[in-house]
Amino acid sequence: MDQFALPVQKLIEEFEKLPGIGRKTAQRLAFHVLNLPEERVTGFAKALVEAKRKTTSCSVCGNLTDVDPCRICSSAKRDHSVICVVQSARDVAAMERIREFRGVYHVLNGLISPLDGTGPDDINIKSLIKRVAHEKIKEVILATSPTVEGEATAVYISKILKPMGVRTTRIAQGIAVGGDLEYADEITLYKSLEGRREI
Amino acid sequence: MDQFALPVQKLIEEFEKLPGIGRKTAQRLAFHVLNLPEERVTGFAKALVEAKRKTTSCSVCGNLTDVDPCRICSSAKRDHSVICVVQSARDVAAMERIREFRGVYHVLNGLISPLDGTGPDDINIKSLIKRVAHEKIKEVILATSPTVEGEATAVYISKILKPMGVRTTRIAQGIAVGGDLEYADEITLYKSLEGRREI
Repeated sequence: MDQFALPVQKLIEEFEKLPGIGRKTAQRLAFHVLNLPEERVTGFAKALVEAKRKTTSCSVCGNLTDVDPCRICSSAKRDHSVICVVQSARDVAAMERIREFRGVYHVLNGLISPLDGTGPDDINIKSLIKRVAHEKIKEVILATSPTVEGEATAVYISKILKPMGVRTTRIAQGIAVGGDLEYADEITLYKSLEGRREI
Repeated sequence: MDQFALPVQKLIEEFEKLPGIGRKTAQRLAFHVLNLPEERVTGFAKALVEAKRKTTSCSVCGNLTDVDPCRICSSAKRDHSVICVVQSARDVAAMERIREFRGVYHVLNGLISPLDGTGPDDINIKSLIKRVAHEKIKEVILATSPTVEGEATAVYISKILKPMGVRTTRIAQGIAVGGDLEYADEITLYKSLEGRREI
């Protein structure tokens, strides 16, 4: 016989489909949910559906938003001449957390990765070029992660944008703040040496 | 401004309320859900609500079930004269996984814990005594966890059941299979010595 009642089994399976959630954790989460009052459970279900239904990609920058254009693209307080190019909407959130960047974003929704079959046309590069061509852009900051794919994507974009006369920069790579020189890998250490500045 | 669109923020908060899910994991899960096709998301939402709505406690044993009495209590293939007493519905599932126990269960839905203010009347002990008094029960296996509360609950129940003339047993405590004697704590080692059997 089944170990759990069918509706419980189904819920466990749904939790198991989430990334990083194994069978045991899925069971723990499902039983936690079953112990909640019904309105809490329906609230959770509603949040799931509404988050999916009420959000779209911003038609300007590609960021995840509930209004189009997104709040950043339509804000008069932001500097629309500086575009920060990131891989995903989560990276926008990470950048916003530092409360330092006052420009706007461009979300690629992916990185160039020949191994995964993702080419330049599969991510939002064309719309970025269009923005640079039609708007008055002073600087494009390439803020993809310093991985092989992130680096390749940044190089690819910079090669297109530079001839267009726009200043193209890349975020600094080096030892993380609080990190230990001794444990840094060679490439990171090299990058931190290469990117040294006068103090 | 908010880092995320409001519906996304709400979903992240819902995930964060789950046990063992922190802010970063909640964000990861929420963005994973947003990348799913809409029917997958509504499926998840439906599973949540249905698991809550369609399950109740079995009126006989207290196990979580979608039919009453539960499939184990109403099965003719099970030995209804042997009751295995466990803390929760999850423990029933754990016992069922070993495919060895053919009796029925009694789910306490808690343990006696004076520190948390949980007394014998707050968990399903009365219904267990009623079952032993009115049904032909040969053995009651006390399978609560070997923690302070689990032990206290088992001792409490055995003191009531033994005078009723029913055989009352406790699951064995000792070194876990594959475990290392060297790393076992003193009490576990003592229990494994005390419970030794001839081979």
